[in-house]
Amino acid sequence: MNGVNNWAMATSRPSYIGPLDTDAVSPYYRQIYDRFCDAIVGGVLKPGDRVPSARALADELGLARGTIDAAYSLLVAEGYIQARGQAGSIVTPDLKPRPSVEAADKAPPPIRVVANTFRPDSIRPFQMGLPALDAFPRKVWARLGARCAREMQPSDMVHPAVHGLPELRSQIAAYLQVSRGIACTPSQVFVTSGYRHTLSLIAQALLKAGDKVWTEDPGYPPSRELLGHMRIASVPVPVDRDGMVVSEGLREAPRARAAIVTPAHQSPLCVSLSLARRWALLDWATRNQAWIIEDDYDGEYRYVSRPLPALKSLDREGRVLYAGTFSKVLFPSIRLAYLVVPEAQVERFEEVSQVFAGGSPSLTQAIVSAFIKEGHFARHIQRTRKLYGERRDATAAGLEGVLGKYVSVDSQPGGMHLILRLSARRSDRRLVARMLEAGLYAEALSDWTVRREGASALLLNFTNVDSQARAESLGKRILNIMA
Amino acid sequence: MNGVNNWAMATSRPSYIGPLDTDAVSPYYRQIYDRFCDAIVGGVLKPGDRVPSARALADELGLARGTIDAAYSLLVAEGYIQARGQAGSIVTPDLKPRPSVEAADKAPPPIRVVANTFRPDSIRPFQMGLPALDAFPRKVWARLGARCAREMQPSDMVHPAVHGLPELRSQIAAYLQVSRGIACTPSQVFVTSGYRHTLSLIAQALLKAGDKVWTEDPGYPPSRELLGHMRIASVPVPVDRDGMVVSEGLREAPRARAAIVTPAHQSPLCVSLSLARRWALLDWATRNQAWIIEDDYDGEYRYVSRPLPALKSLDREGRVLYAGTFSKVLFPSIRLAYLVVPEAQVERFEEVSQVFAGGSPSLTQAIVSAFIKEGHFARHIQRTRKLYGERRDATAAGLEGVLGKYVSVDSQPGGMHLILRLSARRSDRRLVARMLEAGLYAEALSDWTVRREGASALLLNFTNVDSQARAESLGKRILNIMA
Repeated sequence: MNGVNNWAMATSRPSYIGPLDTDAVSPYYRQIYDRFCDAIVGGVLKPGDRVPSARALADELGLARGTIDAAYSLLVAEGYIQARGQAGSIVTPDLKPRPSVEAADKAPPPIRVVANTFRPDSIRPFQMGLPALDAFPRKVWARLGARCAREMQPSDMVHPAVHGLPELRSQIAAYLQVSRGIACTPSQVFVTSGYRHTLSLIAQALLKAGDKVWTEDPGYPPSRELLGHMRIASVPVPVDRDGMVVSEGLREAPRARAAIVTPAHQSPLCVSLSLARRWALLDWATRNQAWIIEDDYDGEYRYVSRPLPALKSLDREGRVLYAGTFSKVLFPSIRLAYLVVPEAQVERFEEVSQVFAGGSPSLTQAIVSAFIKEGHFARHIQRTRKLYGERRDATAAGLEGVLGKYVSVDSQPGGMHLILRLSARRSDRRLVARMLEAGLYAEALSDWTVRREGASALLLNFTNVDSQARAESLGKRILNIMA
Repeated sequence: MNGVNNWAMATSRPSYIGPLDTDAVSPYYRQIYDRFCDAIVGGVLKPGDRVPSARALADELGLARGTIDAAYSLLVAEGYIQARGQAGSIVTPDLKPRPSVEAADKAPPPIRVVANTFRPDSIRPFQMGLPALDAFPRKVWARLGARCAREMQPSDMVHPAVHGLPELRSQIAAYLQVSRGIACTPSQVFVTSGYRHTLSLIAQALLKAGDKVWTEDPGYPPSRELLGHMRIASVPVPVDRDGMVVSEGLREAPRARAAIVTPAHQSPLCVSLSLARRWALLDWATRNQAWIIEDDYDGEYRYVSRPLPALKSLDREGRVLYAGTFSKVLFPSIRLAYLVVPEAQVERFEEVSQVFAGGSPSLTQAIVSAFIKEGHFARHIQRTRKLYGERRDATAAGLEGVLGKYVSVDSQPGGMHLILRLSARRSDRRLVARMLEAGLYAEALSDWTVRREGASALLLNFTNVDSQARAESLGKRILNIMA
């Protein structure tokens, strides 16, 4: 034994280096990744601790070196560990959030309603927010729809529970446990008719006119619009490669009442919120009794590794409201989404949903419930995850092949759209306007940005681009427009 | 009579000093507190008004002085009233209903859910708000449901228009023209997911915190609840045999921003708003640029003559917002309703529905659209109108036969429930509580009433009572409970 791996000689062998589960569904690198996450989150490995070298761990576990490297790359990418070259890797030293710095609140900027996130009448190439329409199992859906309509009994016709059908709430809770690492009871799940309904429910329950809320900048414009209508002030907080810059939020508006974040793939930049930032955010929320609204609109779609656990899975203090939706995984016209609220807020949300009711028809809820129960949902996600990975690569290759001189494609691990960076002097807004005129679709990164100037890029949904040839042909249309 | 309590001698005795409910769960001091809150929030007691001295009120109500003191302390603590020593107490002069930035740290207001409009898990005899569940053409519905699910195309899967499917909006406009005398274009029709969604859309578009709105007294409690939660003050306006007493509204709050009325069959008294009152209301709204919200929840169901044209049909100045629903005509779990807005407000409502989205799934809208188009809707209304006329008579006869000594049934021309008047000294609330315990359903007129005391009656839905024999047997159960 040399000194390098004497960590393995400790009398109490740490759990993260025990034998792997050869029967588990997750691949080995993922199991290793998960263990280190658990060890770091659970405090077994502390900030600054050295982690075993990849070689030593590969030897110990009898695995290929590449497997360990894959796990470590992911851990580095997520900010759990830092590579220090020859010196090995360590748990990120500054994982603990710094105490917040009091700073004078600046006046919130005026609300800007984005003009170009419009919804065309027909389906256009690159249209944002759509899943692959050709990949949806419509026959299965029609069969379940017919069955649920036929089976409707008088007892299914009365006022449905405003929080959603019990069966569907259970299915959602079970799904979130397995797929997003969220431990919640069905009573914490509220079924809504879309993300905006979810957000207005949260605002009605926990916020009020005059409150401040951190929003990501750039970020999903409808959140700011909705808050603005409710006279709640958005405080734009910049986003860098580790997601929302929490320290900037602390500086700008330490006493904001809530933060809306998209931790899995930031909307629209597709970066993940790093673990350090996740903790900083949770720490801020706990200290200030503020709320974190986790908009996990497409957390399922990550292509280079398995989806990350939700931020909600780290929430020990009951500060995170988790917003999920079926709009992206199934299809938008289903008008079905859900919200997971902390245990202590269940009663408040029950009251508010009683007052505002609305909600989804029992038929829709019954169909989705059957769709999940019979395994179609899980299969559909698996299938589309693979498909989107392929379509993403094909679209990026096709567009770069044609437009490579003028644009560059961001490399992101997930999401449903590409970010096509334009050279600085080219206006993304003008290009988008022309593309819309020409029957294409795109959104301009500038229109998603409140404060910072200069980032000129197109947001292009790739889920319905079914081949590289198709992407090339679309790329040529863009090239003509740019000329 | 001494001067101290001559406030009690006013000819119209204010509601907040009526006899207390000896059966209520809340303690007396809490009931007194609640009444004063309502009176102040509702504008019955205005800023600066004197409140009765604790001693005088204790005498009047036959309660201990300490009980009144407890209620008053709470009112003072919460800022509703101010103690002025020897000079007595007054309603806080600068009470600001509008939320301000200074109020930013207070929690949102608690919601007061009316306890007895609860929704039981199972279907109970007399359950309010339900159509005849046995009369719904479920086979036709299932066939259309299966067809619409099967016919779903990719273009039906994208984000639906937030205002509703064009086809359904056209069907609704055509139906309203023929059946309710309303001339409107499809673009004025907004599809919503229920009356509460409709009302919150109206409030978001046209009202703001601090506004006053006339509501009928007695009247549908959820409207007041929803307004209260949006910090909009309900001004209860009494209802007599001609409907809302518009002159009282003019006297109490001439500058209110809106009035919510149920002109066809007042909810719950089932009287129609007279033509003179309709004109008075329209005149007030026009002069004050106020809005009339016409809640036509069951306008289809009139049995002694043809349904009256809607108030909206008289609206020449674009002041009436017409709220209709499929919940009563089809079934509640469909979560589908609609709103007709004046031409000049279309743009505003398009903007607001864009921001708040939500709305109904395309599938539901497609099924209802087909149901109307193929004539099933018109046939179903005709059939149920006849059926409800019969069931109403049978239920009234059955209940009067058994309970005639203790109750009298109001004769109303329409609606879906009966009003069973109880002798003055019998508490409707207590009887309702016992009926609920016994597995029946009823609502107490007192719980629908804000100001006036003394009207003790049960509200009993008759649409699912299918014979006089059944009504007699249910009447016997009530008789046992009353004994």
